[in-house]
Amino acid sequence: MKNLIIKLRVILAIISITVFLISCTGSRSVPSNVITLAEQGSFAVGGTVISSSGTFDPIQDGAFNPTNQNTSGQTLHGDHASVFYQIPAEPRKLPLVFWHGYGQSMRTWQTTPDGREGFQSIFLRKDFPVYLIDQPRRGLSGRSTEPISISASTDDQLWFGIFRLGLGNDFYPGVQFSKDPEALNQFFRQMTPDTGPLSIEINIKAVSALFDKIGPSILVTHSHSGGQGWLTALKNNNIKAIVSYEPGSNFVFPENEVPAPMQYLGGELKARGVPISEFKRLTEIPIIIYYGDYIPEEPVVNPGKEQWRVALSMAKKWRDIVNKYGGDVTLVPLPEAGLKGNTHFPMSDLNNKKVADLMYNWLKEKGLTKKEKK
Amino acid sequence: MKNLIIKLRVILAIISITVFLISCTGSRSVPSNVITLAEQGSFAVGGTVISSSGTFDPIQDGAFNPTNQNTSGQTLHGDHASVFYQIPAEPRKLPLVFWHGYGQSMRTWQTTPDGREGFQSIFLRKDFPVYLIDQPRRGLSGRSTEPISISASTDDQLWFGIFRLGLGNDFYPGVQFSKDPEALNQFFRQMTPDTGPLSIEINIKAVSALFDKIGPSILVTHSHSGGQGWLTALKNNNIKAIVSYEPGSNFVFPENEVPAPMQYLGGELKARGVPISEFKRLTEIPIIIYYGDYIPEEPVVNPGKEQWRVALSMAKKWRDIVNKYGGDVTLVPLPEAGLKGNTHFPMSDLNNKKVADLMYNWLKEKGLTKKEKK
Repeated sequence: MKNLIIKLRVILAIISITVFLISCTGSRSVPSNVITLAEQGSFAVGGTVISSSGTFDPIQDGAFNPTNQNTSGQTLHGDHASVFYQIPAEPRKLPLVFWHGYGQSMRTWQTTPDGREGFQSIFLRKDFPVYLIDQPRRGLSGRSTEPISISASTDDQLWFGIFRLGLGNDFYPGVQFSKDPEALNQFFRQMTPDTGPLSIEINIKAVSALFDKIGPSILVTHSHSGGQGWLTALKNNNIKAIVSYEPGSNFVFPENEVPAPMQYLGGELKARGVPISEFKRLTEIPIIIYYGDYIPEEPVVNPGKEQWRVALSMAKKWRDIVNKYGGDVTLVPLPEAGLKGNTHFPMSDLNNKKVADLMYNWLKEKGLTKKEKK
Repeated sequence: MKNLIIKLRVILAIISITVFLISCTGSRSVPSNVITLAEQGSFAVGGTVISSSGTFDPIQDGAFNPTNQNTSGQTLHGDHASVFYQIPAEPRKLPLVFWHGYGQSMRTWQTTPDGREGFQSIFLRKDFPVYLIDQPRRGLSGRSTEPISISASTDDQLWFGIFRLGLGNDFYPGVQFSKDPEALNQFFRQMTPDTGPLSIEINIKAVSALFDKIGPSILVTHSHSGGQGWLTALKNNNIKAIVSYEPGSNFVFPENEVPAPMQYLGGELKARGVPISEFKRLTEIPIIIYYGDYIPEEPVVNPGKEQWRVALSMAKKWRDIVNKYGGDVTLVPLPEAGLKGNTHFPMSDLNNKKVADLMYNWLKEKGLTKKEKK
């Protein structure tokens, strides 16, 4: 009995010492549902500098004059991308670089319109370093080397249609979007205008500079950044894979095999041609493309659906030609994978965790989820 | 000897079991220098909705037409603030709400120009929930209900002076700013333009809506948001304290005690008047104001310094009158606290950790650092 008490005391002492040692030697215990970050921060990347002729006189012209500022002899730094990044405590080797679509910003990936976690946090929890881009002349990358006028045009319902939430003001039946009016309010407020003329060349240059800076990584694109993503991959070998949600334009083909433009209600979708030697770069990396629901196979009298009918059709041609030259492109219409009701924003739809799981499983299958060696 | 071996085996077993239990029961051990988050995300807050007359025809006008879009019968959601927030695993009770200054965005608080941690991460590590604002018509809050033209004016050297890095292109001696050219490149690229006419009323409304949403919190302002911060506190009782770095304008006085406008090289600083009954709200919360270095007491022939000479002078008058009515305003010129060489951006200067320590110590002294009860 006495022996038992002594043993218990010894056990207690050892537990105390162990806990004490763990807490004192540079580590601590946290709940397992906590996001852990080794570091986070932001930076600008790429861009240019322009100058005005003349001489800057910091005494004469050094006070802020909103109506008559003399800008002679000064510079302007603009056309960069802005990036917010987070590195988990035990990171996987290849970071995910998230690039938004038209009219959007890094907010696309941060949260869902109904307030749940976006891909930023979902993939952080899966231990991926994440980099969120605001492309040049958008959002936090506001400084442009060219001027622009921004109209305050009422166009919410236009985007409601093109982003396939529904038609007019009516949601599509079964759509994966919360019917709480606050969700739609948040969704509309994600939109943010160009603060300079939109330039694909400038965007590609800045995003390519990001991959130069951070090294081998996986690019995740959405909509308008889809095509820009193929073009950036042509330039930059640090793009080791691409996940593309609903790419909409700028599909790149070998210059002798560019398909005819595709007509749709309200527009035309053209493909781009590049020399076959350049094109072949796209066969060197695994690529997956996802499209959501409500995309018809045949023409319909609904411009919001029509645009994506031809995009999906073009994407299939593109998959086939990249694969013909030895590439590894997978195209997944989400309904065929059992996910119904997705809009143009699968990454923030109600079922976005399932959408993320599909993406994660593909990354794993392609050997892209390895951890850093310690 | 045999006994000793048995004891050692028992000890080893107990250590193993302890470690196993810690790792299996919903918790894990992480290095102590890791940032831990219970959650993070973003949202829009405040703002308005405008509508165009007429009817929207989603078939006729539902395709994107960049040169001739019919906007009849559609809405525009604009004039909101955008907020990125992070909640630590073991949060203090009162969050910190960070509001940028003129020409800036939430990037002010994310990182320093030389790539070290900004106040966002520094205070997360001190277990404060953090909320970073992009005010309406700035950065991620790009949608405005009024149009604007954005010039691509060269004005880097103007801001170099006004932000007190130096004069012309020459740094002030001893300035707390990295001489690595990349740091200045990053600093200039933090600037981002207004995407609609700047409106203090709209800004205050949106930020006040944020405090309505998140409850009692501490407001941290910089420069142009300083004065807007006093005005927001007049409206919103959820602002429980204010930390203001270099407030520059919109100092609020009792309407019968408004000081005369102050002249400086290149401009004039006016104060605002409000009824004494409103003014007294400012006496109910602890407030601290910090100014950096290179601010003269007497007029000098340097507009970049002059603007802050009168701001500091006005701030002293303001401190005195709030305290006369029973308030608790502290004003700290950083050189008097032993911190030399600070620019207009103490939160991202080379000594920003010391600047953060001063702020933390003040919060603690005022009883504002309590933890949530479990």
